[in-house]
Amino acid sequence: EAPTKIGEIGVEANVKDLERVSQKLVNPPFLPEHDQVAKGGPKVVQVVMDIEEKEIEIKPGVFVQAMTFNGTNPGPMMVVHEGDYLELTLRNPLTNTMTHNIDFHASTGALGGGGLTHVAPGQQTILRIKCDRPGVFVYHCAPGGIMIPYHVVTGMYGALLVLPRDGLKDNNGKSVTYDKVYYIGEQGWYVPFDDKTGKYKRYSSPIAAMGDTLKIMEGLNPTHITFNGKVGALTGDNAMTAKVGETVLFLHSQANEDTRIHLIGGHGDLVWPGGSFNNTPTVDRETWSILGGEAGAAMYTFKQPGVYAYVNHNLIEAVMLGALGHVSVEGE
Amino acid sequence: EAPTKIGEIGVEANVKDLERVSQKLVNPPFLPEHDQVAKGGPKVVQVVMDIEEKEIEIKPGVFVQAMTFNGTNPGPMMVVHEGDYLELTLRNPLTNTMTHNIDFHASTGALGGGGLTHVAPGQQTILRIKCDRPGVFVYHCAPGGIMIPYHVVTGMYGALLVLPRDGLKDNNGKSVTYDKVYYIGEQGWYVPFDDKTGKYKRYSSPIAAMGDTLKIMEGLNPTHITFNGKVGALTGDNAMTAKVGETVLFLHSQANEDTRIHLIGGHGDLVWPGGSFNNTPTVDRETWSILGGEAGAAMYTFKQPGVYAYVNHNLIEAVMLGALGHVSVEGE
Amino acid sequence: EAPTKIGEIGVEANVKDLERVSQKLVNPPFLPEHDQVAKGGPKVVQVVMDIEEKEIEIKPGVFVQAMTFNGTNPGPMMVVHEGDYLELTLRNPLTNTMTHNIDFHASTGALGGGGLTHVAPGQQTILRIKCDRPGVFVYHCAPGGIMIPYHVVTGMYGALLVLPRDGLKDNNGKSVTYDKVYYIGEQGWYVPFDDKTGKYKRYSSPIAAMGDTLKIMEGLNPTHITFNGKVGALTGDNAMTAKVGETVLFLHSQANEDTRIHLIGGHGDLVWPGGSFNNTPTVDRETWSILGGEAGAAMYTFKQPGVYAYVNHNLIEAVMLGALGHVSVEGE
Ligand SMILES: [Cu+2]
Ligand SMILES: [Cu+2]
Ligand SMILES: [Cu+2]
Ligand SMILES: [Cu+2]
Ligand SMILES: [Cu+2]
Ligand SMILES: [Cu+2]
Ligand code: NA
Ligand code: NA
Ligand code: NA
Ligand code: NA
Ligand code: NA
Ligand code: NA
Ligand SMILES: [Zn+2]
Ligand SMILES: [Zn+2]
Ligand SMILES: [Zn+2]
Ligand SMILES: [Zn+2]
Ligand SMILES: [Zn+2]
Ligand SMILES: [Zn+2]
Ligand SMILES: [Zn+2]
Ligand SMILES: [Zn+2]
Ligand SMILES: [Zn+2]
Repeated sequence: EAPTKIGEIGVEANVKDLERVSQKLVNPPFLPEHDQVAKGGPKVVQVVMDIEEKEIEIKPGVFVQAMTFNGTNPGPMMVVHEGDYLELTLRNPLTNTMTHNIDFHASTGALGGGGLTHVAPGQQTILRIKCDRPGVFVYHCAPGGIMIPYHVVTGMYGALLVLPRDGLKDNNGKSVTYDKVYYIGEQGWYVPFDDKTGKYKRYSSPIAAMGDTLKIMEGLNPTHITFNGKVGALTGDNAMTAKVGETVLFLHSQANEDTRIHLIGGHGDLVWPGGSFNNTPTVDRETWSILGGEAGAAMYTFKQPGVYAYVNHNLIEAVMLGALGHVSVEGE
Repeated sequence: EAPTKIGEIGVEANVKDLERVSQKLVNPPFLPEHDQVAKGGPKVVQVVMDIEEKEIEIKPGVFVQAMTFNGTNPGPMMVVHEGDYLELTLRNPLTNTMTHNIDFHASTGALGGGGLTHVAPGQQTILRIKCDRPGVFVYHCAPGGIMIPYHVVTGMYGALLVLPRDGLKDNNGKSVTYDKVYYIGEQGWYVPFDDKTGKYKRYSSPIAAMGDTLKIMEGLNPTHITFNGKVGALTGDNAMTAKVGETVLFLHSQANEDTRIHLIGGHGDLVWPGGSFNNTPTVDRETWSILGGEAGAAMYTFKQPGVYAYVNHNLIEAVMLGALGHVSVEGE
Repeated sequence: EAPTKIGEIGVEANVKDLERVSQKLVNPPFLPEHDQVAKGGPKVVQVVMDIEEKEIEIKPGVFVQAMTFNGTNPGPMMVVHEGDYLELTLRNPLTNTMTHNIDFHASTGALGGGGLTHVAPGQQTILRIKCDRPGVFVYHCAPGGIMIPYHVVTGMYGALLVLPRDGLKDNNGKSVTYDKVYYIGEQGWYVPFDDKTGKYKRYSSPIAAMGDTLKIMEGLNPTHITFNGKVGALTGDNAMTAKVGETVLFLHSQANEDTRIHLIGGHGDLVWPGGSFNNTPTVDRETWSILGGEAGAAMYTFKQPGVYAYVNHNLIEAVMLGALGHVSVEGE
C-alpha cells in the first residue's frame, strides 16, 4: 500500500500550534454544524471524504455511472471561517477504478490543490489549505485532460463555505444571521439515448460510458439537470423547509454550466456577487446568476406560508430537464 | 359562470382606505402614462388584462400558436411606485382553450400569485399584490408542470415596473429622470421544422403544436428570437425614436433564456444590477446581462444623431434569429 | 484608387492642437508599450491596422477561412487614456475579397464607427474617436446584415483599453498597478463536419465556406473555442508567464458567446463589472462573467510558483473545445 501523501498550500509555519477540530460532513442540502461567528482564533478544521464511483438513478429509469465525493452529488459542503485551515483526508477505496484528485477554488497555488492530490484506488492523500477569502467556492476533481470535464459532468464536485470570522453583513454593513442554510448543487448530465429502444442507455462502468458520453458532451447541451443528484431530490417529502419569519441562506453551485436561480414567491433579499462576502450584496433580486464553476449565496426572509419553488429559471431546464426544488414554509 | 375569485398577497388591512386609480395598459414598447416621482401616498393601481391565445407570425412565413397577455408579446408593462398595490383583473375569455394564471416576480408568497389566479376559459380572477421592492420584474403564466415552460416559451409573459417613490438615482445617489422609456421583451421561440416541405410547421391550436414543440424545447436552442413578438417589430418604421440630448430608459426582459444587450453606437450609462433600483447602478457598460427570468433597466443619453442598433450581442441570435431593434435619433 | 475617407465621432474642435503619438500594435496576448498613469494632457493616438483574410489552422487539421484585424485573432489590443483620441488608419488590401468596417464599443454614435468605415479591397479609411469612458471594450467588423455575425465568428474582432488618466483603483479607491498585462481573446468557431471523411471541412475562400458555416451557426453551439486563435496558443512554450509577487492584469474578450473565466490555483482579486473602471471592482472571485460582446478586466497577484490554468470554466468548452491557456509562474 502506498504511503499517504501530504500536500500543503498557503500554509504557514505556525499551523502546528493551532487548535484542531474535526468536522463531520453531512449530505446536502444540509451543512455540518457550525458557528456563524467564529469562536476564538484560527483553527485547523479536519474533514475526511471517500471518493465513490457508483451508478446513480438521476431520474426514474435514467442511470449514470457517476463519480462522487462521499457518495453524493454534489459532495458535502464543508464550513470554515476566514483564516482557518482546512485539512482534508481524501480516500480513494480499492473498489474504485480511477485516479482522482481535488481542486479547491478557495485555495491558492498548486492548481487549487489538484497538483498535490492525485490518488489511485487504494490510496489516500491529505491536503491542507489556508482559507483566506470569505465566500462559498466550488471544489471538484480535475485529474487532467479529458478526465477533467468527464469527472465533473458525471458528478464529482462540491463546495466549501468560508464564513467571515465576524459573520455576514448586509448591504449597509450591518450584521445578518441565518436561521437555516441549504446547499443546492446543480448538475448538468449528458446521457446517451438509444434510438432503437427509445430509452436512455445504461453502462457497466465509467469507462464503458465514456465514449458515448463524450459525444453528447461535445454538443454542449445537457440532457438532464438535477438539484442534488436526482430529479425530485428536493421536492415533496424531501422539500427544504422553513417557517414564516425565518431567514434562509441558499448556497448554490454549478461546476460546469451557467444557471439562473429564482425563488417563485420569494426573492434574493441579499445576493453576494460571486458568492464572495467581501463584496457588497445586491438586493431585491428576482433572479441571480451562478456561473459554471461558481458557488453563490442568496439570503431570503420568508414572509408568507406555503410552497415556494426554487428553480433554474430557464423553465425548460427546470421542468423538462429537472432543475427544480421546493421550499415548504409553515406559519401564518 | 364561475364567480370571480379574489386573491391577495402581502396586502395590509388599510388597503381599502387607499386611493384607487385605473391604469390604461398600452402595447409595448410603450408604457402607460405615469409619474416618475410619486404624487401623494400609496395607491391601489387597477389594471385589466385579457388573456389571448392566438396564432402569430413571428417572421414572414413562420407561425406560432402563441399565448399572450393582452394580445401582445410581451404583455404590457404595468407601472406603479414602491408601496403601491397592484390590483389586476385577469380575464380568460371563452374563446380560449386553456387554463392560465399569473406569477409576479415582484410579489411575495403564493407562488408570486400563481397559486391564487388559475382561471379557466370563461372565468376571471382578481389579484392584489403589494409592490414593496423597487425594480422591474417579470410576470408570467405558470399553470403547473409542463405547461409552465410551454406557456412561457409560446409568449405568455410581461413585466411590472415598480419605481422608487422619489424616482431613480444614479451611481452617486443623485436623482435622474428619463425623457423616454421603452420596453423590449425578448422571446425565444422553438418552432418545429418540416424537412419535407423545407418550411417551419404550422399548427391549428396550442395543443396541436405542443408535442412537436416540446421536442425542440428539449434541445434548449431556440429557432427564432424576437424583440416584441416579431422579427422587425422594432426596426424601420417601427424603430424606437429619440432626440439628441434625450435620456432614454430601456427596460428589457427575458422570461426563459439569458441574453446580453448592447446598443451599437451607445452605452449603458447606468445599468442597475438585476433591474432593482436599490442597487447602485454600474456605469459605462458596453453590454449588459439579462438572465432568463429577469427584467433589467439601462439608461442612456444620446449624444449623436443617427440610427443605433439595439441588439442581443450574440450576433447570430441578433441577425440570424431576429433579436435586433433600432433606435432612430434625430438632432444635430 | 479611391481616396481615403476620414470619419470622426465625438471629436472636438481642438483635436488638431493636441499632441499626436504613434502606437505600434503588437500581437496578443501582448499589449503595446504604454504608461499606466497618463503623462501630460490628452493626445491623439495613431494606430494602423491591415485587414487580412486568411486561412488559419485553429487546431491541428482544422481550418477556417478567417477574417482578421492585422492577421491575428483576436486583433491587437490598442491602449489609450480616458480623454485621448484614437485615430485608426484601417487598410483593406487588394488581396482581400470583401468589404469590411470597424465598430468600436468604446465610441459614441455612428454605429460605433461602423457607419463611417466601410472599406472595399484596395481602400483605406481613417477614423477618429474620442475615448471618454475608462474600461476595456470590444471592437469588431460589422459590415451589415448576415455579414455581421459571419465576420465576427470567423475571427474579426479585438479590443481597446481605455485607462483612467490616473490609473486603476481598487475596491477601496486606492491606486493599483500591474506588473504585467495579458490580452486573451476567446473565439467560438462554427466548423462544418464532413460525415463521409470523418473530418472537418476545408474551404477555398470565406465565400465558399459561408453557406455551410451559417448552418452550423444557426444551431448556436460552436464546434471549437480558442484563446488567441489556436488551441494551444497560450500553453506550453507559449504559456503566459509571471513571477511570484507580480500582479497581472488579465484582459479577456468575447465578441459573440458568453463565457466564464477561472484561474485554476488563483482568483480574481479585483474584477471590474463590465470591464469598466469607473465601477467598484468586486473581489475574491473564483469565476467571472464575460458576456458575448464584452471585454473584461481581472487582476491577480501570484503568491505561489507553478503552472496555473486559465480557463473558460465550462470544462467541456475548456478541454474538449479548446478554451484553455496556462500561466507559468516562477519564484519561491
Ligand atoms: Cu473526478
Ligand atoms: Cu416566478
Ligand atoms: Cu400561460
Ligand atoms: Cu457594437
Ligand atoms: Cu469583418
Ligand atoms: Cu479550478
Ligand atoms: Na482558484
Ligand atoms: Na463563489
Ligand atoms: Na418572486
Ligand atoms: Na428585475
Ligand atoms: Na457602443
Ligand atoms: Na468592457
Ligand atoms: Zn476523479
Ligand atoms: Zn496532477
Ligand atoms: Zn474549477
Ligand atoms: Zn397559460
Ligand atoms: Zn395552482
Ligand atoms: Zn418566473
Ligand atoms: Zn469584414
Ligand atoms: Zn454602413
Ligand atoms: Zn458589437
